[in-house]
Amino acid sequence: MLVVKVGGSEGIDYAAVCDDVQSLVESGQRMVLVHGGSHLTNEVATALGHPPRFITSPSGYTSRLTDKRTIEIFEMVYCGQMNKSLVEMLQARGVNAIGLSGMDGRLWEGPRKKAVRAIENGRKRVIRDNYTGKVENVNTQLLNTLLDSGYLPVLTPPAISFDGEAINVDGDRASGATAVAMQADTLIILSNVPGVLKNFPDEASLIQNIAVNDIDEVAEQHAEGRMKIKLLGAKEALQGGVQRVILGDARGGSPIMHAVNGQGTVIE
Amino acid sequence: MLVVKVGGSEGIDYAAVCDDVQSLVESGQRMVLVHGGSHLTNEVATALGHPPRFITSPSGYTSRLTDKRTIEIFEMVYCGQMNKSLVEMLQARGVNAIGLSGMDGRLWEGPRKKAVRAIENGRKRVIRDNYTGKVENVNTQLLNTLLDSGYLPVLTPPAISFDGEAINVDGDRASGATAVAMQADTLIILSNVPGVLKNFPDEASLIQNIAVNDIDEVAEQHAEGRMKIKLLGAKEALQGGVQRVILGDARGGSPIMHAVNGQGTVIE
Repeated sequence: MLVVKVGGSEGIDYAAVCDDVQSLVESGQRMVLVHGGSHLTNEVATALGHPPRFITSPSGYTSRLTDKRTIEIFEMVYCGQMNKSLVEMLQARGVNAIGLSGMDGRLWEGPRKKAVRAIENGRKRVIRDNYTGKVENVNTQLLNTLLDSGYLPVLTPPAISFDGEAINVDGDRASGATAVAMQADTLIILSNVPGVLKNFPDEASLIQNIAVNDIDEVAEQHAEGRMKIKLLGAKEALQGGVQRVILGDARGGSPIMHAVNGQGTVIE
Repeated sequence: MLVVKVGGSEGIDYAAVCDDVQSLVESGQRMVLVHGGSHLTNEVATALGHPPRFITSPSGYTSRLTDKRTIEIFEMVYCGQMNKSLVEMLQARGVNAIGLSGMDGRLWEGPRKKAVRAIENGRKRVIRDNYTGKVENVNTQLLNTLLDSGYLPVLTPPAISFDGEAINVDGDRASGATAVAMQADTLIILSNVPGVLKNFPDEASLIQNIAVNDIDEVAEQHAEGRMKIKLLGAKEALQGGVQRVILGDARGGSPIMHAVNGQGTVIE
């Protein structure tokens, strides 16, 4: 079982991702695809007059401030434009994709974090009008039913809270939770960088291997921006029984194949 | 088996629709919900600088001109905002909804109409940059698998062409095709009018019953705007074996229950 997460940053070659998914599915690989949509969400939110805002937690993780209107725009881009464009690209390649959000069939369920602590302009504040949370339960029965029937699940946030609200969850950590629940041996997290860089943004300084026990130290010393949370997702996946997490580059051809072959940052 | 279509026009009370779906599902009713999203699509398309355009066929049916950019916006609203907001409302009511477009799992498959004849400013023209078509195959296996597992399918256009392209299909006719394929006994089509009006827009002139053989005549003489295609969808459903089609009002409380009890235009 393989879980592949492809990010939503600028520069990602989704057609190349779909080409690789096609090859893998045709070869009989059981897999789930997860995707993001942050860059396009920022563009659409700005165009619709509700520009994005980000907050940083006291422990240094940045995330999208997600009020009710943001969740609507988020769903438009993640569940609408991004998810259906991937489904269409895969269907055109003969892959019988089914796109689902984490709300559908309570696929990704977890608690909503009703009060979020954040640092804004150097000052701590508590934010309440925020629909975010984390994935605690994965509906593996639904995923296995679809996989057994020959479909490829294409998953996207938001998830659903225990109270039935749409909640924004981090896609990397949701992929990790999915890989753990589906007992995947490998989790691949693709973005628009080659992996973890020792000296960001110097791409020649790629860290090729990280041992599980060194993740926290590497995250502390070298991870910039979104890479920090990718390493957290990787750590959670490995602690949950996934054997190998690869952080790879999706800006060029064969991104999944390259990652499978160990290109990128391999963590095991 | 019951198929309910709720339109996307202004004034529809989606919470009331979801309340009724909850009651029906709790009572054990096997059903599928289909929805539209035209009003919101017009708003978003305008806000994003790609305002909607409509064409009228030589036989008098109006439809959305659907170029590639329109399909993207269409997916944002129908598959993103509308579909996920219905899924969220249903999940909050304890109904385990799964939202799918007609592309997912090739749920609604059919031919793309590559050249569309239209009347524009009184002159005939042929439009080619148009992604529209009609549903010929319904993936009943997928729907039955989900229903058997206790999920409520919530369906929305676009459908998928035989070549794997997203195609805009009429939601009313797609509901009719779904009702036929699923061997539904009843199809309910809800919108923001009480049913077919003898003297549009006089709501007191509701036509309460239409016999199958009279549909064409009623459509010719009394159907305004979108009602014409709803009657076509109704006719196709009845010809395919559905016993009863009810065109009902979704602007107030208990819209599905009222329709089930015969309020609206009943065609059988």
